[in-house]
Amino acid sequence: MTKTNPGRFFEDYRVGQVIDHAVPRTVSGGERALYHALYPARHAIYSSDEFARACGLASSPVDDMITFHTVFGKSVPDVSLNAVANLGYAEGRFHQPVWPGDTLSARSEVIGLKQNSNGKTGVVYVRTEGRNQHGSVVLDYVRWVMVRKNDLDAPAPETVVPTLARVVDPATLILPEGIDFTHYDPTLAGERHRLGDYAVGEVIDHVDGVTIEEAEHMMATRLWQNTSKTHFDVTPRADRRRLIYGGHVMSMARALSFNGLANAQMIVAINGGSHANPCFAGDTLRAWSEVLDVAETAAPGVGAIRLRLVAVNEDGRAGELKDAEGKYLPHVLLDLDYWALMPV
Amino acid sequence: MTKTNPGRFFEDYRVGQVIDHAVPRTVSGGERALYHALYPARHAIYSSDEFARACGLASSPVDDMITFHTVFGKSVPDVSLNAVANLGYAEGRFHQPVWPGDTLSARSEVIGLKQNSNGKTGVVYVRTEGRNQHGSVVLDYVRWVMVRKNDLDAPAPETVVPTLARVVDPATLILPEGIDFTHYDPTLAGERHRLGDYAVGEVIDHVDGVTIEEAEHMMATRLWQNTSKTHFDVTPRADRRRLIYGGHVMSMARALSFNGLANAQMIVAINGGSHANPCFAGDTLRAWSEVLDVAETAAPGVGAIRLRLVAVNEDGRAGELKDAEGKYLPHVLLDLDYWALMPV
Amino acid sequence: MTKTNPGRFFEDYRVGQVIDHAVPRTVSGGERALYHALYPARHAIYSSDEFARACGLASSPVDDMITFHTVFGKSVPDVSLNAVANLGYAEGRFHQPVWPGDTLSARSEVIGLKQNSNGKTGVVYVRTEGRNQHGSVVLDYVRWVMVRKNDLDAPAPETVVPTLARVVDPATLILPEGIDFTHYDPTLAGERHRLGDYAVGEVIDHVDGVTIEEAEHMMATRLWQNTSKTHFDVTPRADRRRLIYGGHVMSMARALSFNGLANAQMIVAINGGSHANPCFAGDTLRAWSEVLDVAETAAPGVGAIRLRLVAVNEDGRAGELKDAEGKYLPHVLLDLDYWALMPV
Repeated sequence: MTKTNPGRFFEDYRVGQVIDHAVPRTVSGGERALYHALYPARHAIYSSDEFARACGLASSPVDDMITFHTVFGKSVPDVSLNAVANLGYAEGRFHQPVWPGDTLSARSEVIGLKQNSNGKTGVVYVRTEGRNQHGSVVLDYVRWVMVRKNDLDAPAPETVVPTLARVVDPATLILPEGIDFTHYDPTLAGERHRLGDYAVGEVIDHVDGVTIEEAEHMMATRLWQNTSKTHFDVTPRADRRRLIYGGHVMSMARALSFNGLANAQMIVAINGGSHANPCFAGDTLRAWSEVLDVAETAAPGVGAIRLRLVAVNEDGRAGELKDAEGKYLPHVLLDLDYWALMPV
Repeated sequence: MTKTNPGRFFEDYRVGQVIDHAVPRTVSGGERALYHALYPARHAIYSSDEFARACGLASSPVDDMITFHTVFGKSVPDVSLNAVANLGYAEGRFHQPVWPGDTLSARSEVIGLKQNSNGKTGVVYVRTEGRNQHGSVVLDYVRWVMVRKNDLDAPAPETVVPTLARVVDPATLILPEGIDFTHYDPTLAGERHRLGDYAVGEVIDHVDGVTIEEAEHMMATRLWQNTSKTHFDVTPRADRRRLIYGGHVMSMARALSFNGLANAQMIVAINGGSHANPCFAGDTLRAWSEVLDVAETAAPGVGAIRLRLVAVNEDGRAGELKDAEGKYLPHVLLDLDYWALMPV
Repeated sequence: MTKTNPGRFFEDYRVGQVIDHAVPRTVSGGERALYHALYPARHAIYSSDEFARACGLASSPVDDMITFHTVFGKSVPDVSLNAVANLGYAEGRFHQPVWPGDTLSARSEVIGLKQNSNGKTGVVYVRTEGRNQHGSVVLDYVRWVMVRKNDLDAPAPETVVPTLARVVDPATLILPEGIDFTHYDPTLAGERHRLGDYAVGEVIDHVDGVTIEEAEHMMATRLWQNTSKTHFDVTPRADRRRLIYGGHVMSMARALSFNGLANAQMIVAINGGSHANPCFAGDTLRAWSEVLDVAETAAPGVGAIRLRLVAVNEDGRAGELKDAEGKYLPHVLLDLDYWALMPV
């Protein structure tokens, strides 16, 4: 039994520690097709080689969220197997697209530690990066999780809380090489509105809903080789429900946001994110977005739009996020803040 | 909210109007594998590169129904988002196979309009065509749908009902380039009966049954980027059931028909089709076929067989289609009329 | 109805009979991605082209169990359509890896027959082999099934029971060409224990559990073109449950065994196997392994480990296999005996 991975506990982390995550992963057209079977994804750059070429890319990359999930999944056995909660994300940047045939590996550095006052848990901050087979970074991001202590007598480490940008500065966004929206075809993209048509503060109700099934979220979560038991095994909970991987909610909401934001083609940065409430099979998931900011980029015809993407369950309404005390409303499942590329 | 696609209503269509559908789609081995995971598909030309080569093709194309679903799915947001019913198909012809790596796009022309006497709905006839990345047509077909009016005061358009062939003339069937069944291997195909062994009027009970699950039909429907809400969201219906995409029933029935029609290798034309009754998860689907006609083709060793493919639920029996008034029996889900290629 | 495949009955088999199975199958990155979506598979050789190259292979082959299931599935319509029970396996050897793009076909030879004393059933022994498009064997194995008689008056055949090796002699294991674990990276593999760290008799509890869903096991079983009705159709059983394909349990258990046996990279032989009790959707599957033997091989840095892999449902415990009478305990679903390659 000692040969199985018990996961790391809070007292096992040190600031500065670097963890190389196991099981590199080659992605192919198979992952791409499955992504489209699991989510109603329709952003044209990720759907069509021809459309991607017309935008200056060599062919259609895999969806940016495939990159995110694959890198995230690798980090789970080392970072969040004993996590009580996934608290937040910051400073996520996509450095380059991932193409069918690429092999991804992941590494995390511990950049902060803070034991909680109860002495039973602590917060671990890691910066995780994914690299391709050429050793080039494809994505990096910070996340922090609350992790249990195994040995309650282990001394509290020195508190180190990293200073994290509230928003990725749009001047530092990294654009895919060659990207060019000069000849962008809005008809093929499925949306006539361009960056100039979106106003900061505007709220878009994406209208469509999907009722979540067990088989689907498990297939998604396994595809990213995410091993967190709670997503697969009904026996630990008295109500025999599986907790759905937060990334499944992210991808579902992002795909639903096509209806109103079809031109928000590629996610280039994740500014922050909260899994506000847990999601279970049977929930009907809807999404709404709020335009938080717009920016220029150096690429021809390419602008950036900063969006708040909110996933809600059946009782949620567009625009309703928090109560008077600033607490997320019970029907809010996800509050994600990201930058995407959009034709100007 | 104005940025989301509300879909077209009956009064938004004009005869002669051409609609370029959004989101072209590159298909790969991933779509092919998923098709085989979602349906018990075993027709050998679509299963094996080697078998396809022995039949004169360059390699194994994707299943003809992948082509149909992909083209159909693109048309949904423009044609049937506000449809009350999908009434029929005619004059469907497959012009050439689709191969992994091909990118499909779709366009529809409105060829007929007829407002219903209730003044609330009307029938829209469209001819939809799918093209590959070379601009060559891969499939075209006519379908007609009943669409709601949004503005009940909008004037009724002039009634135009297109004249449609009841059956695609077998002399006009388009055969895949190079197809040749001279060296056809019936053992590898899984069936010893050739065209000459099937008699017009013969009914074949395909015996096998599949009980339908929610996760599967949703994955299939998403894979074709079909966005019709009713297939995904349980909340609109009081019984909280999802209506299953009619094409899911088509593909399931076609795959089940292998058992008795394994040599009906490639569908080359769709003469007509009715989704006779709705299908829901939990239904156990079976299929039977009736031989409607046989024909010669110009390709070596290749004949054509015209089949009626009927999908039924648990209470259905082979050969039972309509009641005394000519109405489909309640257990009939699909009545599809098509031409397939079969070795002579 | 005479055109559908009724399957063979016991009296239809003759010792020495060779059956070429229908529907060859080309596998691609799609099958590979689906395998990772359906099972929590993480063995690095099957996950990463780069890792596979570092082990001397040209790229990452498809999981060995994809080979097994595909070959097995082809044999179902000819061997086990009328089977009452799948009794056992022996002498299974993997001759070479299967790569995306390969086309597999299968053939079985009847090597034994034994009518049961009740006169209603008999045991059929077949040696099944799978070949790739070059005609080279990729896998062969013996299995025996209990098959119903259709004509109870058919005379009993002469009893022929083949002599089968209880274990594949490790000296006869066939290693993938070029395999070399000299530069094996245990960090990327996710496991620091090497062959020398495992003791014969050691029991490893793989800890993780997966609660089985209907949609998943059906998708898996269809992907291998296994047509056995009992896996898909709820109507034949009074309790309206589907019996889960035994191979689904095999793959799930093998994938779960990563946690403790991540370095048991490639299965090279199947010594035996029993589907001890049926598995149904809703069962929570766990796995444990017992080390049965270790051996050297001729390849650099490559050893072989013989493992008993046991899948249990919710009530099972690691190490508990049979009762005092030698009967499998009711919670044991699978008892599989195999050889895998592991770095020394």
